[in-house]
Amino acid sequence: MLPNEDSYYMGLALRQAARALEEEEIPVGAVVVCQGKVVAKAYNQTEILTDVTAHAEMLAITSAAQTIGAKYLKDCTLYVTLEPCLMCAGAIYWSQLGRLVYGATEEKRGFSSLGKQVLHPKTEVVSGILAEESETLLKEFFSMRR
Amino acid sequence: MLPNEDSYYMGLALRQAARALEEEEIPVGAVVVCQGKVVAKAYNQTEILTDVTAHAEMLAITSAAQTIGAKYLKDCTLYVTLEPCLMCAGAIYWSQLGRLVYGATEEKRGFSSLGKQVLHPKTEVVSGILAEESETLLKEFFSMRR
Repeated sequence: MLPNEDSYYMGLALRQAARALEEEEIPVGAVVVCQGKVVAKAYNQTEILTDVTAHAEMLAITSAAQTIGAKYLKDCTLYVTLEPCLMCAGAIYWSQLGRLVYGATEEKRGFSSLGKQVLHPKTEVVSGILAEESETLLKEFFSMRR
Repeated sequence: MLPNEDSYYMGLALRQAARALEEEEIPVGAVVVCQGKVVAKAYNQTEILTDVTAHAEMLAITSAAQTIGAKYLKDCTLYVTLEPCLMCAGAIYWSQLGRLVYGATEEKRGFSSLGKQVLHPKTEVVSGILAEESETLLKEFFSMRR
């Protein structure tokens, strides 16, 4: 996987995050790529769905499994614009995800703050891809709210 | 809340777990009770839905929010036959659940094994309610699989 491929797919995840912003949801977007093919795109929909579990990653994992017809995402990469929370990290664990690429760091509720390996040992992790762009969207959201 | 009320509602969760067993799913069941009313019942459906996120607790939290028309479950109790995993504990955190009552302990992937407070500080936790009945169902499932 070349770095510019990661940027390309993270760009698609950012577009999802931008859609969330348009709909006044916390702007986080995700895409799942399996063997060079985008199999799921999603953005945070906790407000419109009245569902705290409707994070971008959760929707993307469920959607990817439907598309490929299998529960496990061993040969897939999940791109998400913000570091996953504990709930999403747990889902990523169960999915046996091959590779996780995230953008901005989530200091408060990001999974890595737990200081323990909560992901599957086989899941490769890359962070910081287009992090600034992700943070810009989040800042825009929270400044709108003030 | 009287102890026998907890047993009563956990009995309903066990019935959900028994349904999972009938459908050859790992037998875990959950119910959500808000102000004396059952607002959601669910059982693990990861196989039938081809979805690793379809744990009983996740489905119950989503369903409860739909029933009461609100994302947060501050005045609700979630009864689940097995200790929630990290994913479900994360969802319970986001739901701001008032009270969590679980049955059997999950040594490997239970949230409490993390040794940190992963739940919301306001969520009251009770464990061990009808734990043996829950374990019996789980043992039956795993013996069927051998």
